[in-house]
Parts: sequence; C-alpha cells; structure tokens
Amino acid sequence: MSIYSYPLLNSINSPDDLKKHTLEEMPVICDELRCFIIDSLSKNPGHFAASLGVVELTVALHYVFQTPYDRIVWDVGHQAYVHKILTGRRDVFHTNRQFQGISGFPKRSESPYDAFGVGHASTSISAGLGMSVASSLKHESNRHVVAVIGDGSLTGGLAFEGLNNASINPNNLLIILNDNQIAIDPVKGGISQYLVNFTTSRTYNKIRFKAAAFLEQRNILNTKKKHKITSIGNQIKLLLARQNNIFEGMHIRYFGPIDGHDVINLIRILSEIKDFNGPKVLHIVTKKGKGYKPAENAATEWHAPGKFNIETGERIRHNGDKEPPLFQDVFGKTVLELAEMNDRIVAVTPAMISGSSLHFMIEKMPHRVFDVGIAEGHAVTFSAGLATEGLQPFCNIYSTFMQRAYDNVIHDVALQNLPVVFCVDRAGLVGADGATHHGVFDLAYFRCVPNLTISSPLNETELRNLMYTAQLPENSTFVIRYPRGNGVLVDWQKPFEEIAIGKGRWLKEGKDMAILSLGPIGNVVAGAITEIEKQHKVAIAHADMRFLKPIDEEILHYVGKNFKKVVTVEDGVLSGGFGSAVVEFMSDHGYSLIIKRIGIPDQFIEQGQPAELYHSIHMDHEGIKQILLNVLTQ
Amino acid sequence: MSIYSYPLLNSINSPDDLKKHTLEEMPVICDELRCFIIDSLSKNPGHFAASLGVVELTVALHYVFQTPYDRIVWDVGHQAYVHKILTGRRDVFHTNRQFQGISGFPKRSESPYDAFGVGHASTSISAGLGMSVASSLKHESNRHVVAVIGDGSLTGGLAFEGLNNASINPNNLLIILNDNQIAIDPVKGGISQYLVNFTTSRTYNKIRFKAAAFLEQRNILNTKKKHKITSIGNQIKLLLARQNNIFEGMHIRYFGPIDGHDVINLIRILSEIKDFNGPKVLHIVTKKGKGYKPAENAATEWHAPGKFNIETGERIRHNGDKEPPLFQDVFGKTVLELAEMNDRIVAVTPAMISGSSLHFMIEKMPHRVFDVGIAEGHAVTFSAGLATEGLQPFCNIYSTFMQRAYDNVIHDVALQNLPVVFCVDRAGLVGADGATHHGVFDLAYFRCVPNLTISSPLNETELRNLMYTAQLPENSTFVIRYPRGNGVLVDWQKPFEEIAIGKGRWLKEGKDMAILSLGPIGNVVAGAITEIEKQHKVAIAHADMRFLKPIDEEILHYVGKNFKKVVTVEDGVLSGGFGSAVVEFMSDHGYSLIIKRIGIPDQFIEQGQPAELYHSIHMDHEGIKQILLNVLTQ
Repeated sequence: MSIYSYPLLNSINSPDDLKKHTLEEMPVICDELRCFIIDSLSKNPGHFAASLGVVELTVALHYVFQTPYDRIVWDVGHQAYVHKILTGRRDVFHTNRQFQGISGFPKRSESPYDAFGVGHASTSISAGLGMSVASSLKHESNRHVVAVIGDGSLTGGLAFEGLNNASINPNNLLIILNDNQIAIDPVKGGISQYLVNFTTSRTYNKIRFKAAAFLEQRNILNTKKKHKITSIGNQIKLLLARQNNIFEGMHIRYFGPIDGHDVINLIRILSEIKDFNGPKVLHIVTKKGKGYKPAENAATEWHAPGKFNIETGERIRHNGDKEPPLFQDVFGKTVLELAEMNDRIVAVTPAMISGSSLHFMIEKMPHRVFDVGIAEGHAVTFSAGLATEGLQPFCNIYSTFMQRAYDNVIHDVALQNLPVVFCVDRAGLVGADGATHHGVFDLAYFRCVPNLTISSPLNETELRNLMYTAQLPENSTFVIRYPRGNGVLVDWQKPFEEIAIGKGRWLKEGKDMAILSLGPIGNVVAGAITEIEKQHKVAIAHADMRFLKPIDEEILHYVGKNFKKVVTVEDGVLSGGFGSAVVEFMSDHGYSLIIKRIGIPDQFIEQGQPAELYHSIHMDHEGIKQILLNVLTQ
Repeated sequence: MSIYSYPLLNSINSPDDLKKHTLEEMPVICDELRCFIIDSLSKNPGHFAASLGVVELTVALHYVFQTPYDRIVWDVGHQAYVHKILTGRRDVFHTNRQFQGISGFPKRSESPYDAFGVGHASTSISAGLGMSVASSLKHESNRHVVAVIGDGSLTGGLAFEGLNNASINPNNLLIILNDNQIAIDPVKGGISQYLVNFTTSRTYNKIRFKAAAFLEQRNILNTKKKHKITSIGNQIKLLLARQNNIFEGMHIRYFGPIDGHDVINLIRILSEIKDFNGPKVLHIVTKKGKGYKPAENAATEWHAPGKFNIETGERIRHNGDKEPPLFQDVFGKTVLELAEMNDRIVAVTPAMISGSSLHFMIEKMPHRVFDVGIAEGHAVTFSAGLATEGLQPFCNIYSTFMQRAYDNVIHDVALQNLPVVFCVDRAGLVGADGATHHGVFDLAYFRCVPNLTISSPLNETELRNLMYTAQLPENSTFVIRYPRGNGVLVDWQKPFEEIAIGKGRWLKEGKDMAILSLGPIGNVVAGAITEIEKQHKVAIAHADMRFLKPIDEEILHYVGKNFKKVVTVEDGVLSGGFGSAVVEFMSDHGYSLIIKRIGIPDQFIEQGQPAELYHSIHMDHEGIKQILLNVLTQ
C-alpha cells in the first residue's frame, strides 16, 4: 500500500478521463503523477529520472491531442511511464519491466496508445514522419503525429536523417525536442552546444523575463519556482522570432525554447501550433528527475537507480563485500590497467560512460576516453580512424546497439583489418529491458564477417586475459562479448596471461558425451555436469571454446573422432551462431555424430529477470541439465 | 593509344612532382587531368562525373598539403580518380576497377596516399576526426587531416554524428564540403536546401560579383567562364562573414562558399586556412561532370556511363532487343504494376531512384515514391512508420547498404512484425565495385532475425511472383534478394502467381545426388547438372528452395530420407547462410549424409567482372560442375 493518495489520478483511466478535468487541475494531476511514479519506482525499479522530466509534457499531449487516433511516438521510451499510467495501465504499472508484466518501453502489442515500439534511440522522427506522410497520402489530414525526442537522442544520425527528410514530403509532424542536456550520461557534442546557445540567447531570456511577471504559485513537489515560466498571451510570436536556426534552414518551423514544466503554458502552446501545416519543432527545456531533489541533482545516477528510500534518497543495494564484480567493472578497471601499460590504448563509447564503467579510466586519463554521444556508427568509424594512426582503440558498445554499427564494423574496420577491439557488453538476455535490448544476435551477425576474431570469456579473469591478448600488436580486429551483470569470481584480478588465438580449453575430461560451451554460460553448464555426474554414472567432457572465430579445430576434430554425442551451448541465437559453426565443421569434415545445440530460439524474448527468461527457454541450470540428460539417454 | 598528349601530367608521378610546377601551370594540369580521365573512361568504364567535379580540388589539395604525411579521406571515393592519377597510379589507371587491377575506390593496401578505404557514403568525417584526434594525442600537431565530403553524403546520419563530435576533442580536421547538389541522383532533403540557401545568399553573391572583376582567361575544356571566381585578395574575411550557420553553431569554423573550379583561388585559400586551429569546414561549389558538356547536362546519367564516344557523347551499349532484362528493371516495372493494383503500396529508396529503377514508378505516381537521400537507416524506420498506418512499403536497398540499416530492420520492423517488403538489390558479387560493394552477408545476417520471411528468386518471373506474394495482406516482413545485372528470361512478364510461403520446388528429379540452390545461381547449377548428366550416367535432383526462411522442411526431410549426398549452392557467405541452415536442419533431425556447401568463402572478394570473380572462387559453371563431379565420385 502506498502512503500517498491520488484523488484526481485515481479517476483517470484514459486520456478521455484526463480531458474531463479543468485546465487548472492539470498541475495537481502532474503532482499526483510524480508522487505515483516516485512511490512506484522506489519499490519496483525502473527508469526513473526520464519520466519525471516529462510529466507536464505527457499530460499536455494527452490533454491536447486525441490519442490514440493522434499518434505519439516516444523516442527511446525510458520516459513513457506517465504515458502508460495515463493510458489505462496505472493499475498494472506495478508489473512494469517484470516477467509477463508490462514492458518498460512503449510497445504496439501492449496498447493502441503505443503508436510505435521503441527502446533504441533516435527512431522517433523517422517513424513519426512515416506515420504523418501515410496520413497525408490517405487524406486523413486531421490526424496529428507527435515525435518526442530528447537532445541526447538527437546526437544519433538517424534523427538527423529524419529531420533532413521532414520537409520534403507532405506531413504535419510535430517534433517535441525535449532538451535536458542529459541522455543517460551528460550529452556530448556540437548539437547539444548548439541548443544551449538557443536557450541562453537573448530571445529566450526575454521570454523568461516576461514570463516571470506572470509567475503563479503552484504546488509541485520541489519545483524551483523562480525558474518557471507561465502563460503569456502573445508568446507564439516571440517563439517564432528566431528564423536562422538549423530547423528553419531545413524548412521545419521552429518554436521555442519554452519551459517544459509549465503544463498550462504547454497546453496553450500545443493547442495553438498543432494545426499549423507542415513539419514543426517545439523546443522545450526540462529537467531530468524533476520534482525529486536527489534525482535532480544527479540525473545520471538516477537514470535507473534500483530500489530506493523515498525519504532519504538512499539507494538500496545488496552488494556484499565479497560478491563477484560486474563484468562491466572488470572491463572498466582492466582497460585502465592496460592503458597504463600501453600508451596506444584509447577507449571509445557511444554515450555509455557509466554503463560501460569507463568512469574508472576517464577519471585517470580523460584525454584518452572518447564519449561520442548516442552515435554507434560514428563510434566505430571514429575508432577506425584512430587505429589507422597507430592507436589501439577499445570500442565498447552493447550487443544490441552494435546492430546499429554493423556496416561500420564490416566496411570501416574488418575490411581494412584495423586493430580495433570491440568490447560487446550486455551480450545474452539482459533482463528487464526486454526484447529491444537483448544482445542475442551478435555471434551470428559477426561470424559471417571475414577478418574478425570473435571471443567470449568464461569468467572475469578470462575477460581480463582476452582484453590483454587483444591489444598485443600482432592481433587485429577483435571482438570480446560478455554479459550484463555479475561474474562468478571474487578473486579475479590476477596477472595478465596471453591466450592463444582460436584456442579453447578442456575444463574436464569425460567419455560419454562432450559439451562445448562459449562464454559465461559455461559456468551453468559446469554446474549441471557436476550434478549429473553425481546422480548418474557418467563422465562428461566439457570444453570452454573461448573463440567463435577462429574456432578451435583441434578440439572439434578431437570431438568428431572420439565422441558420439556433443552438445553446444551459447547465450545467443541458434540460427547461424556458435552451435551452427560446430555443425558446419562436423559436416564439412564428414564427422557423423549426434549434435544438440542449446541457445536462444528463433523468437523475440520479452522482459523479466534473466533467471526467469533463461528458465522460460530451458537455458537455466535445470533446463540445461534436463537437455543433457535427454541427450545422454538418447 | 590516346589522341591526347599530356606534356605536364606525364612528368607528374607523385604530389612532389606536382609541387615542382608553378601556380600558373595548375590550370593547365587540371585541363590535362580532365582530358586524361575523359579519354580513359571512354574506353574503360568507371565513375565519371564525380571525378571531373573535383579536378581542381584534388590538384589544390596535393599542391598545398604534404601527402601522404598529411591525410586526405575521400568520402565514398567515386571522385578519387584524380587523386589516384596524381599519386603514382597514372600508368595503371587503365586497370581501374578491373580484376587484379587497381580499385575504383581509395584503398589502404593499394597506396600510402589512400589514408582510408571507402566505398559507402558518409564515413569521411568520422574517420578523419579519428585520425586528427590521434595526431593530436601523439603530439603530431603538424599533421593535417582533410575529409572531402559531398553534399549527398552529408544526408547520411553518420556524417552528422561526425560533425556533432568534431568540436569536442582536440583536432584540426579540415572538412571540404563539396557541394554539387547531386549524389548519384539529385540530393534530397533539408540539409541540401540549407546549403542552397548559403550559396544563394547575399554574401556569396557579393563574393562572386567581386570575383568577376578579376576574371582571368583560362583554357579549360568547356568551362563556363562567367561562373568562375578567381583570386581576390581579401576573400578570407568575407568567407567568415556568416557566423550563424549550423557549422559555426557546432563550433566548427566555416569558410565559404567558394568556386571549386578555380584552382588558384583554392590553393590560396587552403594555404591560408590550413593551419587554423580546430575543426573547420570549407564549402566549395562544384559541378559534377565539369568540363564535359554531356555530363554537365545530365550528371545522373553520367555517374557511371559505361563506354562512350568522346566526340558525340554517345554511350555505347550492347543491349539486344531480346536480351533478358536487368533484375532492377523487373523490380521497377513490377512495383509499379503492383502499385496500380494495390493503392496501399508505396516505394522507398535511399538515393537510388535510378539504380533501383524506381524511375518507372516515380514518373507515374510521384507521390508514392520516397527518395529519402543517402540514409538507409531512415529509409527502413520511415518505412516502418508508413507500415503502422496500413501502407505497404516496398523498401529497396542494395544488399551492401542494408548493412547500414540492420538495427532498423531488427528493432523497428521485425520486432513489431510490420509488413515492409525489403527488396535487396545487388545481392551476391557485384563486380567492378569490389569488396566494399559485394552483397554477400545478407543471407547470414538476416537469417538469425526472428519474424523475417527471406526469399530469393531463381529468375525474373519468380521475382515478380515473390513481389506479388509479399504484398498480400496475410504476409508480414518480407525480404526478397536479387542480384545486379541481367536475368535469364526474355519473356518474363507473365500474370502474377502467388507463391506458397516457405515452399521451394523441384526443378528436376534424380536419384544420385540432390542439389539445393537458392536464388539465380540455380540457373548456373542447372546448366552444370545438364552437362554432367550428358557426360556421365547419373541423375541429379535439383530443388530451387526459393526461401531461406522459413526453409522448406518438406524438401529437406525428403532429401534427408532419400539421398546420401546433397550439395547446397548460394551466392552468399558460407558462414551462417543457406547451406548452414540446411546443415543445421539435417543435424537437428538426425539425418546423416554428405553435405557439400558451395558459397562465398570467408574472405573479402576484390573487384573484377562477376564472371571472373565467380570463376576465382569456383562458383562459375565450370567450378560448380567440378565440385558436383567431385561429390558424385566421392
């Protein structure tokens, strides 16, 4: 039970209910929404700061537009919790991001109000433009399409491609540029600076000054009232004053910037501009974490804070002293260690300094860490450029986001055999972020690319040693994939050892069956083998293959010659992945044996705890054990 | 032998030789270069108009900068012929794009002057920025890096990501914005319009006016002299007049626009700005095809015109009346035909109207064809948006460029099961464009993605029928891949027939071996089978599988049960592709048979005629025949 009550919010089960309230009640509804989110997320963790930043915007959009007939596309979707709560999902919001609960992102199959499924950044303008052009073609001129995009997402090239196209086809797309100077980490790059110039320009300050005269008292939790802008009659005219910006230059009408936390003013302005013909941008300025002081002061930490104590702002963690470290921290500490030894090493990340644990390195050697913004393609091609000049970039990109830089890896790095080390974090099923974020395709999509060395460590020490090996001067393009979450070793920080390229290792001997695993899932396999051997009189051989490419042919020949049954295990998709490589090898070399491949099936996997998800596809301890038993008794 | 002589050019075997000449000789050298290129390309076809547009720029760059110590990165590289000729490759230029000749694109392994290998658009700023930042980190402050990018390539989001990052790290990158308002087709989108606004602005016209007073006579083939701008003393100051453009807003110093065909002025300006600290843009205005009237008047047709008669401008073609059509024309005519029947159909292309033969449809229904510029990611996500509103987009992207939209296909289309039909042109080995352009990875990288239907037609009629089938309302995301070049049928335009999803067909019966092929390479296979059966007493079964996914399990079970030997044939990479799917199936179902997979090996394949290339990897008629014989006698 919540300690809060929501007298207005409790009556709102749809945007139609919202519209029954008066304009003057909107700030109160915003207050209630903030409390609801803060309370809910303190218990059931999720993306926190983003949604608090768009409470007023979301209320204003659903108040002004006729959703779901009008379409709202939320870029990334971290910020869509208010939207979900207002569109009939308040009562199930406690299942947010949980197994079989609602998704943490907008999702078309979940609600007609979710016009477009999102999760990756910078898609909203392109998708929204498609919708608006379609409506125009279908002569549905009364349909509005709104794309809400943060300034962080605007650093992604796809957003620019969308903007570039916004003016050349008939459409009425309204782009809300939600400018908070922060993505997950602070936004990097020129476009962000360009927007700052707008907001600090004379016109904006003039608006703020005028607005201050109309300042109203409102009862919003922790609002810094002196920064608020309220209704001013003739504001639209002022907002149009700036004619020479990039948007106007691209024939997209520009309005703003305005205070994104003044719901009444937002409603007035949206109502005035929504029927203007053609594409248009409304630039609003918001604060991530707005209304909850600890989050306002540290938006990056409060991007997805986990459970927390509402009163104290204390984040509730359960890290024991002797818990195995996060794989990302092993990467982050090791790349710093290597960089201290090898001055050619630099690190590149597309807006994931904290998620990749590059803060360790950036603190010690800020000039050798490059946060390029949400721009995976650029991260890779920029790394290629660094490598041509003799540097050794470690380019860290989550598996699911690496999909966005696929051509850059092929065309700019692998084809030229450049020594970039790709550290592919969040490989495998990532958990609560769900289908948009699982890193399950990388083994398959990288395996077909020539010149790549592709590896995955069994544990933290192996990750260290693979990173050490990758930066040795004799090696070229190198992929190291590792999962989200904790490893298995407490005492992991051992002296570096070189690992022979393309060489796996036998973890144990056995005669009845061979198991070949790739990556940390090998630890689950090892546990299952131990149990099976205890309960049954069998001896199972188990190799940690370490490398998908080049694959260890010595081990494979040995298996082909000495075993009748082999099981492959990987935390990636079965089609074309590691098991597929083993099957190809056995077929090519004429070995005839029973091969069972364990991996992610050919379907998109939803959200949930990794344990729940792996269980659901029979890839947890019990599932793997059962499959191994089945093969043994086959 | 050429009818032209090149008294100055003949003495230039390196940029050092170029520098021995006087400034005043530069226009003459430009003339000779133009003649050399026109003469050479009239006999040995290549990309024509782009290089003619940058003759003066290339001469100026190599005159001013100390290449190869200074780096020049050519975006795309269509325009790098002058660069190749000036950097020691004049004598081998007649092998341009030929098998074992020089590459049609800059290539690091070919010359130290080729600082970065290119082929795909929009990479130069990111790569050049990497180089410049690396030089800065290494304290090589005297090294200059120049990225040359066309306004067409600037529509690609990667270029924007590079620009967005140019100001946040120490670097001296000089970006030459080569503004000719044309990529291959005319450039589309707001950014192009934005640049037009620059060039038509008062300041630019003022510069042009001043320059006109200094007009000099020069002897450049077909130059429209009234458009030329020549040296004016105090021009730099004028060029800096415009402070509020997007580049300056992103803290990138902007100079221009200036006439890109005035080599002496270019040299002066480059000399003046090259040592300015920090990132900078020099905006030059050029004409594609400059100096050859027929190309100036029709730059799109003269992008890569094939052989031609220099005197008349007549392009030399060998199309018989009854030759099978280009696959692209079958697509182009069929999508129009389908669109006339189904008003939900729209077509989307990233700057490939002519290459995809969408001109047929754009002529008849311009509002239903969307050329989004060089922006593959946007093309896909925009298509997704169109599809959410009930339209049926046919999104046509070359296989190699589809790599740039991989995440958009996964995250924006397949995950949401949206009915977009991806027509993947230029699949397989494309020929003279070489390693950067072969379309060999798509089968592997698409196969691992859930929800996709993936097909490839044996011939033109099958392509028609697959396109017809794909747009039926019961089908969702659909991939149809087909190659560059001609099909095999003269009489191809038959009434539409629906093809059952996931169903192949037996082309012939046989008992001694089964061949499973995917796509038009099945025709080569059929020829080989015919010959083998004539010469040997064998009967070979051959199935055209049509679908990679869902794969025809009925055929596979039949093969598993009835044959001891099976050969798979595909014009894609072997790792993870069609043959891999067959091997997986046989293994999963416990069939034990000899499987030989024919496909592209795990290496990047260079340029040459497709016949030469397929021969080199034993995938032409003779090669396949020999492999089949080997398997038969195994």
